[in-house]
Amino acid sequence: MALADELRIALDGRWREVRDRARVELAREDLLPDPALDLAAKRERVRKQLPVIARTGTPRAGFGAEYGGWADLGGSITGFEMLAYADLSLMVKAGVQWGLFGGAIESLGTEHHHQKYLRPLIDLDLLGCFAMTETGHGSDVQQLETTATYDPQTQEFVIHSPTASSRKDYIGGAAADASVAAVFAQLITADGADHGVHCFVVGLRDEHGHDLPGVTTSDCGPKGGLDGVDNGRILFDHVRVPRQALLNRYADVDPAGTYTSPIENPNRRFFTMLGTLIRGRVSVAGAAGSAARLALCLTTRYALRRRQFSSPGADRETLLMDYRLHQRRILPLIAGCYALQFAQNEMVAKMHNLEQQEAPDEREHRRLEKRAAGIKATATWHATRTIQECREACGGAGYMAENRLTTLKEDTDVFTTFEGDNHVLTQMVAKEVLTAYADEVRGLDPLGMARFAATTVADMVKERTAAAPLIQRLIDARGSEDEDNTLFERGTQLKMFEDREQHLLETAARRLRSSSGDEQSAFEAFNAAQDHVVHAGQAHTDRIVLEAFVAAIDNCADPDAREVLETVCDLYALRVIERDKAWFTEHNRLSTSRAKAVTAAVNELCARLRPHARDLVDAFGIPEEMLGAAMLNDPAFG
Amino acid sequence: MALADELRIALDGRWREVRDRARVELAREDLLPDPALDLAAKRERVRKQLPVIARTGTPRAGFGAEYGGWADLGGSITGFEMLAYADLSLMVKAGVQWGLFGGAIESLGTEHHHQKYLRPLIDLDLLGCFAMTETGHGSDVQQLETTATYDPQTQEFVIHSPTASSRKDYIGGAAADASVAAVFAQLITADGADHGVHCFVVGLRDEHGHDLPGVTTSDCGPKGGLDGVDNGRILFDHVRVPRQALLNRYADVDPAGTYTSPIENPNRRFFTMLGTLIRGRVSVAGAAGSAARLALCLTTRYALRRRQFSSPGADRETLLMDYRLHQRRILPLIAGCYALQFAQNEMVAKMHNLEQQEAPDEREHRRLEKRAAGIKATATWHATRTIQECREACGGAGYMAENRLTTLKEDTDVFTTFEGDNHVLTQMVAKEVLTAYADEVRGLDPLGMARFAATTVADMVKERTAAAPLIQRLIDARGSEDEDNTLFERGTQLKMFEDREQHLLETAARRLRSSSGDEQSAFEAFNAAQDHVVHAGQAHTDRIVLEAFVAAIDNCADPDAREVLETVCDLYALRVIERDKAWFTEHNRLSTSRAKAVTAAVNELCARLRPHARDLVDAFGIPEEMLGAAMLNDPAFG
Repeated sequence: MALADELRIALDGRWREVRDRARVELAREDLLPDPALDLAAKRERVRKQLPVIARTGTPRAGFGAEYGGWADLGGSITGFEMLAYADLSLMVKAGVQWGLFGGAIESLGTEHHHQKYLRPLIDLDLLGCFAMTETGHGSDVQQLETTATYDPQTQEFVIHSPTASSRKDYIGGAAADASVAAVFAQLITADGADHGVHCFVVGLRDEHGHDLPGVTTSDCGPKGGLDGVDNGRILFDHVRVPRQALLNRYADVDPAGTYTSPIENPNRRFFTMLGTLIRGRVSVAGAAGSAARLALCLTTRYALRRRQFSSPGADRETLLMDYRLHQRRILPLIAGCYALQFAQNEMVAKMHNLEQQEAPDEREHRRLEKRAAGIKATATWHATRTIQECREACGGAGYMAENRLTTLKEDTDVFTTFEGDNHVLTQMVAKEVLTAYADEVRGLDPLGMARFAATTVADMVKERTAAAPLIQRLIDARGSEDEDNTLFERGTQLKMFEDREQHLLETAARRLRSSSGDEQSAFEAFNAAQDHVVHAGQAHTDRIVLEAFVAAIDNCADPDAREVLETVCDLYALRVIERDKAWFTEHNRLSTSRAKAVTAAVNELCARLRPHARDLVDAFGIPEEMLGAAMLNDPAFG
Repeated sequence: MALADELRIALDGRWREVRDRARVELAREDLLPDPALDLAAKRERVRKQLPVIARTGTPRAGFGAEYGGWADLGGSITGFEMLAYADLSLMVKAGVQWGLFGGAIESLGTEHHHQKYLRPLIDLDLLGCFAMTETGHGSDVQQLETTATYDPQTQEFVIHSPTASSRKDYIGGAAADASVAAVFAQLITADGADHGVHCFVVGLRDEHGHDLPGVTTSDCGPKGGLDGVDNGRILFDHVRVPRQALLNRYADVDPAGTYTSPIENPNRRFFTMLGTLIRGRVSVAGAAGSAARLALCLTTRYALRRRQFSSPGADRETLLMDYRLHQRRILPLIAGCYALQFAQNEMVAKMHNLEQQEAPDEREHRRLEKRAAGIKATATWHATRTIQECREACGGAGYMAENRLTTLKEDTDVFTTFEGDNHVLTQMVAKEVLTAYADEVRGLDPLGMARFAATTVADMVKERTAAAPLIQRLIDARGSEDEDNTLFERGTQLKMFEDREQHLLETAARRLRSSSGDEQSAFEAFNAAQDHVVHAGQAHTDRIVLEAFVAAIDNCADPDAREVLETVCDLYALRVIERDKAWFTEHNRLSTSRAKAVTAAVNELCARLRPHARDLVDAFGIPEEMLGAAMLNDPAFG
């Protein structure tokens, strides 16, 4: 088998069949974005394409067999990832309908809701939206202001937007298409007690598309991208819904108005509910990966035909890909894509397995949430930087919408913001490690972190991936730290990633604990260490990603592919070290001469991978029909 | 006077009156972009707004009094910079008409062309475009393929596109509006001799907007931004133009077909012609500065009203701007804007003064070109990164087009590519310094650099800004390098910038000279050092920018403003050092403990500037009418 095929098998992972099916199903040019359309036409187009996706397995895979689903969560997430090679508006529209709205019904609802909603929503007979974010609160979901007040008289909840800032905002589907919404609101019982944020199914529009009484929707208008998605705003004016509108898996209100929940701690209850919604976050990470790979495939293939400036001893000018600078701009980003793909595959498999358990271990679930937060942030930042670099690396051609890079950039730009702001998520990752999974300090509240930072390093639970013994073996087998050539040893790289994470976490914990304990002091300690904490969170995820790469290489049977993967892994690891070289030298993890050697090593690795450039991106397995860039076919360019 | 006003005076510089006039003239909401319009409507809108700009002084300022101009080049460039607060499509459309097309006529043409074209083009009676770039060659202009073959029989030039790749591409105005083009083509005389690239005025369309015989224009279609600009492609099929169509300031062909030029060396002639066109590059740097300032003004004001997560001992949540992470994301970018504004002002003044000389010194002109290349690259990268960070820092609101950040990002994204690709320009900067201004090695050809790298450091001409004595004084007065607190000394910072540049240049020269001299070896030496060379080019420009900042502080009379400027300058300098900290430690310019102190210093400076955040952006002097962001007024946000 050709190298690219062997590499593709490694990258495809467990749900290879889902990917292969999608490669056939989605290889249609009418599913690509059409930048020449205006906003209304783009929305109309996506609306018409959604049924095409409904006929693929992707939506069905995410739901149980009793409602017509295939009960293959991993396959569903992988399907969404593949869909991201097509129009990203279509992917987001599908994600809202089946992932967010459908996911809320399935995860937060019970039998009654499943019976009533799942089949219609799978078949697009019911279009829903996911109304969590408000203008006033996006990151701090616990502070949402929309209220759902129970009225025992009529056995109804009254959904209300009491303030300007409680307006639901940026909600995909709310501007035009959704007839119902999963609305997150503070549940208040007749005694005036606020039981925190819960989710309710609320009708928005009648069959003619008009707002129902008490509901006022509006259109967010043009955005930075995702033009095919009708994002909107919703205001509720004392809208009454039946008691059963509460998605009552984790809490219920009886007809008389008594609130009950199997989870006593309100904080824990809130985060348990939120935790069931991670499939959105995992899907965004996957879609970001697809978008970055697509951009790199286009850019690499362009750099392998585009020539500029005279070449010595040759009739033709020099290929862009033969310039060291161009290699340096592109190849480390490809290595990043490989690393993140392996980490994504591992995460999806973990989620899938956990979902299949009768009684999932709560600590395992929190680890998965942490991982999803970290990989979502890392993958979406990687996508944003990658696509920007690709746009620039293709020069003027890169700025033409017909070459897709600008649309990719625009459509993915909000990925760093939605499904959790990346800076907030990265702090959450650090917090989960630092506070040793204390129930009291879940979520994103900065104060909690300072107050509950682990008192000893031993309290910080070191999470190892499945490949733990292999990783320990590699670390133990590494050579002396004084020699430059050990930089190419996996054990050295693993140890450097591990050391950095541990040191950053330990010192962050020490700084956070230095506060005297009162609120003001805790906030100040947290705030003073905020950049440090984010660094620690990133270092944690970097290690998880590298370990996933190492495990994937171990799983690769083909010796040629394995050899290339080893080099790609070196490039990934050394590029991460190079970017944080100052930290490694300041903390005596790198001598100044070894630090210089890191840069030389990155250059050398780029040169070594240059002959495989085409194979590396062909291995992404993106069908030709889904590339759709004029610059790859127009003879004027090559 | 208020602090913001004093700071504004410092930032405004020499052409303050031009800026103040623009602040009144442009404070109209109808000049802001309207993202709700479709492509055709956006173009139509810009077409209608262009006459509004024609009535301001900006276009007129760029041309001589004998043609109705004001002969105030600096004022003209400053006017374009101010125009960038409005719709950037309008700025680019104006820049094409008066800057590029008008600039080519004025700089490359003679009396005949001035008489014929300048008044009509100033008054918009003649719309032109600037047809340099071809699909096959953008960066390497010397290799353009379009031919202009002289026919002595008819005393005409025959303009022709012989290949697919010789198609003129991405040309602003070519898709619809321009009736003539300044076309760059290889001038070939009847004896078959190719005299290199020259510029010709060629008609494109008749009065009904139809392509003239032999001309085929087409539309580039949707782009990543600048929707209001009609970029297009042009193919010429043996189009005949009179002999006088050659803009003949630097070369001419007599009726019989004999080619003459006052500049004998063809390479030098080519770069002399190209060098006259730097006003485009300088204008783009200025526009990038405006866009970055606008984005930071919006983002800072949002961060001063937006709150998220509970605040200790307060009823209200914490302002975004009070988080250390947010300060770190925003304030160093503001400092960068200050630095670049001062460098831009200095550069514009230099260009203005040079233009006024009877016989401008050629070496001075080349220095100006180098500076324009370096500052263009630095300012446009700064804008791209700044606006991206601002978009993310405003979260979901940042993604809504009504808040302007996404449009700013899209419209400025091509700035890093057009008027010279930034990576190519940065190499050119390094090359100009490294090759000690050897005539033989101008331009962007990588081989030349390797072959002509200075043999001794003494050959590298150290260029000092106007403030040379002051800078030397500061450097001499600096304290011991062993103490952390000397990081806050201007002299220490200046010395560090200078040392880094010098060391990078010296070592780059050594690597380039290591080639054995033949073409293949020279290319390999160049290519192996390419990342190093770019680093050296950036370090050179960083120093020029810091020195401009120091000179500007020296010019500031108000003690309060001066004190704030000193802090902003510290932040600028230490942020540059922080980003390149690994280099400084690897080369023993920073001990590891001092390196840590740099990070602490950046945090401290951010905290020190936090109280002035609003003043710092108010000092940009952007009229309220030109901000146009819903998030700053909507009560739901603050």
